[in-house]
Amino acid sequence: MGERIPVTVLGATGSVGQRFIQLLDEHPWFEVVSLTGSQRKVGQEYSSACHWVLEEPMPDWAEGMIVQESNPEATNAGIAFSALPSRVARDLEPEFARAGVFVCSNASAYREEPDVPILLPEVNPDHSAIVETQRTRRGWKGGIVTNPNCTSAGMTVALKALQDAFGLERVFAVSLQALSGAGYPGVASLDIVGNVIPNILGEEEKVECEPLKMLGTLNNGAISLADFVISAHTNRVAVLDGHVVCLSVELKNPATALEASRALTAYHAPQVSKGLPSSPEPVIQVRDEPDRPQPRLDRMIGKGMTTVVGRLRPDPLLDLKMVVLSHNTIRGAAGGSIYNAELLVKQGLIH
Amino acid sequence: MGERIPVTVLGATGSVGQRFIQLLDEHPWFEVVSLTGSQRKVGQEYSSACHWVLEEPMPDWAEGMIVQESNPEATNAGIAFSALPSRVARDLEPEFARAGVFVCSNASAYREEPDVPILLPEVNPDHSAIVETQRTRRGWKGGIVTNPNCTSAGMTVALKALQDAFGLERVFAVSLQALSGAGYPGVASLDIVGNVIPNILGEEEKVECEPLKMLGTLNNGAISLADFVISAHTNRVAVLDGHVVCLSVELKNPATALEASRALTAYHAPQVSKGLPSSPEPVIQVRDEPDRPQPRLDRMIGKGMTTVVGRLRPDPLLDLKMVVLSHNTIRGAAGGSIYNAELLVKQGLIH
Amino acid sequence: MGERIPVTVLGATGSVGQRFIQLLDEHPWFEVVSLTGSQRKVGQEYSSACHWVLEEPMPDWAEGMIVQESNPEATNAGIAFSALPSRVARDLEPEFARAGVFVCSNASAYREEPDVPILLPEVNPDHSAIVETQRTRRGWKGGIVTNPNCTSAGMTVALKALQDAFGLERVFAVSLQALSGAGYPGVASLDIVGNVIPNILGEEEKVECEPLKMLGTLNNGAISLADFVISAHTNRVAVLDGHVVCLSVELKNPATALEASRALTAYHAPQVSKGLPSSPEPVIQVRDEPDRPQPRLDRMIGKGMTTVVGRLRPDPLLDLKMVVLSHNTIRGAAGGSIYNAELLVKQGLIH
Amino acid sequence: MGERIPVTVLGATGSVGQRFIQLLDEHPWFEVVSLTGSQRKVGQEYSSACHWVLEEPMPDWAEGMIVQESNPEATNAGIAFSALPSRVARDLEPEFARAGVFVCSNASAYREEPDVPILLPEVNPDHSAIVETQRTRRGWKGGIVTNPNCTSAGMTVALKALQDAFGLERVFAVSLQALSGAGYPGVASLDIVGNVIPNILGEEEKVECEPLKMLGTLNNGAISLADFVISAHTNRVAVLDGHVVCLSVELKNPATALEASRALTAYHAPQVSKGLPSSPEPVIQVRDEPDRPQPRLDRMIGKGMTTVVGRLRPDPLLDLKMVVLSHNTIRGAAGGSIYNAELLVKQGLIH
Repeated sequence: MGERIPVTVLGATGSVGQRFIQLLDEHPWFEVVSLTGSQRKVGQEYSSACHWVLEEPMPDWAEGMIVQESNPEATNAGIAFSALPSRVARDLEPEFARAGVFVCSNASAYREEPDVPILLPEVNPDHSAIVETQRTRRGWKGGIVTNPNCTSAGMTVALKALQDAFGLERVFAVSLQALSGAGYPGVASLDIVGNVIPNILGEEEKVECEPLKMLGTLNNGAISLADFVISAHTNRVAVLDGHVVCLSVELKNPATALEASRALTAYHAPQVSKGLPSSPEPVIQVRDEPDRPQPRLDRMIGKGMTTVVGRLRPDPLLDLKMVVLSHNTIRGAAGGSIYNAELLVKQGLIH
Repeated sequence: MGERIPVTVLGATGSVGQRFIQLLDEHPWFEVVSLTGSQRKVGQEYSSACHWVLEEPMPDWAEGMIVQESNPEATNAGIAFSALPSRVARDLEPEFARAGVFVCSNASAYREEPDVPILLPEVNPDHSAIVETQRTRRGWKGGIVTNPNCTSAGMTVALKALQDAFGLERVFAVSLQALSGAGYPGVASLDIVGNVIPNILGEEEKVECEPLKMLGTLNNGAISLADFVISAHTNRVAVLDGHVVCLSVELKNPATALEASRALTAYHAPQVSKGLPSSPEPVIQVRDEPDRPQPRLDRMIGKGMTTVVGRLRPDPLLDLKMVVLSHNTIRGAAGGSIYNAELLVKQGLIH
Repeated sequence: MGERIPVTVLGATGSVGQRFIQLLDEHPWFEVVSLTGSQRKVGQEYSSACHWVLEEPMPDWAEGMIVQESNPEATNAGIAFSALPSRVARDLEPEFARAGVFVCSNASAYREEPDVPILLPEVNPDHSAIVETQRTRRGWKGGIVTNPNCTSAGMTVALKALQDAFGLERVFAVSLQALSGAGYPGVASLDIVGNVIPNILGEEEKVECEPLKMLGTLNNGAISLADFVISAHTNRVAVLDGHVVCLSVELKNPATALEASRALTAYHAPQVSKGLPSSPEPVIQVRDEPDRPQPRLDRMIGKGMTTVVGRLRPDPLLDLKMVVLSHNTIRGAAGGSIYNAELLVKQGLIH
Repeated sequence: MGERIPVTVLGATGSVGQRFIQLLDEHPWFEVVSLTGSQRKVGQEYSSACHWVLEEPMPDWAEGMIVQESNPEATNAGIAFSALPSRVARDLEPEFARAGVFVCSNASAYREEPDVPILLPEVNPDHSAIVETQRTRRGWKGGIVTNPNCTSAGMTVALKALQDAFGLERVFAVSLQALSGAGYPGVASLDIVGNVIPNILGEEEKVECEPLKMLGTLNNGAISLADFVISAHTNRVAVLDGHVVCLSVELKNPATALEASRALTAYHAPQVSKGLPSSPEPVIQVRDEPDRPQPRLDRMIGKGMTTVVGRLRPDPLLDLKMVVLSHNTIRGAAGGSIYNAELLVKQGLIH
């Protein structure tokens, strides 16, 4: 691979957009050639247009970049990483796809479309093939692939390992989600300091649906959903990064906590998804301590791409209880989209 | 009622002990005549012996009281409110019961004993009758009654209303628990600021067992457990007071969210438990907002004695989802023990 | 006093406006007859128009009140409590004053005008007389009195006691301010959880100027500033309510920490300001513990109206160091405005 | 430099000890050959003996190391990094110095001794020469050098640049200090969530004294203190890492904010202290934003070794106000000790 592929970041000034910029710094395959923002920020330098909220400093090369409008001509790239709000993404992402750009989107706008895959390279890299259906049906030269909601991401990786080993029947999921998932300014400090908000608008529906699509099977250009049921409660807590999910699962073939631990530890990504720049190492880490995983201590395992599982134990109602942790703006957002793009390059869909 | 009943607080210097002192200030029936602490604090004035952590100031009368040893002679009271650590309670509480004192205990030491009731006056005031068995079997002149674990308290009140109206089959409960539940110094700030701890030692077992005893039936001097199953996950979050529980329930006779809301709102305490100084008003409050109950905003409803329920909605796996909030050191600890003592007085067991 | 005086709250939906509503609940002298909000909220019920952020519940009578426009006809009251943003206050408050309404304002818009007093009844109740100048010069039938910035309030009470007893030369003040001072939504949680923001726009200027006006003298209808100098740094911290100020002071007549403690404790309000419904009891509380005052534990002393001082000790550079705590939305905002209105009634300026 | 120098970490299980272990991972000059802990941890594996609180994972090589007793024989190293509590350090550090070990200590036990230097390589590397006096007087073959208190560290670097350029007369310093400065378990969460603690025991004395020693001059084997005065207030806030200090300074030769900014930016370490593995790059970073430095966003600049200064502005009382930020467990503790050891190697004192 001689030259790096030119990429753009749509909606680069928000908190997920910032994470894209940070993670694409010195990326071996991709070079950020443009970035976009809302109308009133167009024309400003990125360092002025953006209230940077990450602990890692803004890369030097990004500081002076001029915020562009979100259209294919202005951005001039082969891949568009989208951190657009969903209602904006609905209109703009197809413009890029039509113009031959591959949109790797963090927005939820197209996740439910039958011909748009929700991709986790560790889980369902084969689903990217449905892009062909997309192109045929919609007359696009590029395409749209999405990554899941930030809460669905980590728990789906864990569920995949259990599904492969034992089959799944029923899943209870209760999340304790970090503030960065709500963007910036997002959650008001008066609402969350010393408090819990027991709802995140629209989140429970996503957590109950998206894993079933990712864990479903692609046949004849259509994805059939996995045939188990998820019940979800979602909560916001005063954590900066890292979503915790308490999971109880009923398996088709019951297993002990030890067997599940072994299956989770042994899980590896399909061959095509290994060895990419963003591949998690390991895909899943199982911890034995009685009080882990914790967001502050464990979210950066595998550079924020690893799914961390702990507290495997019997469940008196279903089969097993466990706690799953995943970095919501890395594995669950920008890092996931970048990993998806790497997969598409490896698969030859982007070149 | 002419004179107030002399009471003592065992383990008065800890955070639950402080809550007893604060709630007993100007109590119409009870007068604190002594308070106790660990050996190295005996002989000190309470104001020196105690690192007060409550926002309400220490009552004037308590400041100069001298910390006593935890024995019936030194404390000289008819009722002992126990905020002792469980391992200490195991040895000391029977000494008081033997000496004719009625121990209203917040400790878990005797909750599992078949002849010791776990009492919630709104739920199972009749269970106090088992004290007779206790006296007969153990040769005590006084007795021990306990209040449940702080997380079990609020959720059992809500479950009782649902059990009465529809019957219960299965319950899934995930808690987000406040720091005050761990006592003082309790949770280290480095462990919880910007973090979640996904375990509380021994808590899940209590949450899975205690409600079944309280919701069971007393027959012929024995309590038979309620015949449904609870699965619990317990978490610590950076909230000062107020435990949140995400509940999913399967009912014997399925009900809609609206029907459940009506049943919860209509629930009232048995007659004997009404109109006592600590009776919650209302017993249950159901909220309609999409993001309530929240610990900071709702924990003090009904002076911290009300169980607050919100977000009633269908559950794709069981029947209904909801969120339950209860003040962990008032309804779930000191306030609960005091309410129990009031019940016992009303029932004529204490006089 | 037979009937209560009809009052209105301007800007009632914000966080200070909410505090006005909460503190005016069952006020013995004042009755809220109307409340106002921004244009897009006019016509809505208060309970819908307002995202209530206080732990005390919204009073029943307020829930159904309809949000009005901020003009004297719509509000129909003799006193207007203003929680308006300053740029809005600049235009609207004079309309009320002109129409004969007495505006007790929490906004900073008119604090620097020479004929508008900044009032603390414990400190400078005589300054209210300058309203006569105001009326003459501006042709108003009502008037505007302001309360100081939330940080200036508490520290000025403490400085007044020291000024009276020893005289003041130089004051160094560093604040650690609560989130509620920034209103709602105010500070983004991503900016403050686990963090400090070492600046509050425009605050240092206010803290350096306002105390000099309040501690100055009124002569011949003009206020001359006190002749000492203040240097201020202001910081935002993750506290809900209660501003802490670290003060170092140089006195005209040097005093020991003990002498200063006695002077602070002995300080009492001028006679006219005593015994009003919002009079702080005590005006100043001095604490001896090595680690107090603390916002969480001490902000509600005297129902949030008391100024709490602690850690009096020698300063190697000036004379004394101390820590001052004051409740920023009670003493420092809504409670202060209400206390001002009570003073004006007592002085016969409002009737 | 062929082989790495064998080093030991005394008190390795606490939070500063952990930071030593983390920062010494893959150090080019030093190899950790042993680590010590309190008596009840001796003999355990480090991974069991230690409640790891850092976000960076424990290095693999440390996990299986056996905790040793803190004596020179058991530890067998040429350099001892001491994270011992001060009262323990007082007895043990001389044992190491006597046995020929060079102790680079984070403890305060010997900082006030006239023949023990408090070293900041960017500031006073020449003070290390006083070790000769130490050896002569005390008959030690090794020696003790200390790094300053975590709050003194960063502010002294900034003060040095101002002292060199303009001279110093008076300094006001008010700190907002992070939780990690108190060690583990340290501050109880109930004391600090939503709160401020306006005192840190013994800290103000250190902040008022230590900078004067570091900024003093070494002549004829004795250090004379710098001749200006510091007044300090110290506060604890709910921040994980990074101490903020609000500074007001009076200069001998007054300067504008711009001149001070240039002097701070231009400041560089003495030649001997440059280019070492832990040398900060840059020594001082001056920021122009109105709300920086902030602990969460700026503490890791220069790998946590840089002193970050912002908000330079005139002071109405002294000359200039500014805000200084420094990472308290890196620049202010373990990283500082390691940098000191590197300096001593470069100076030929350790070989």
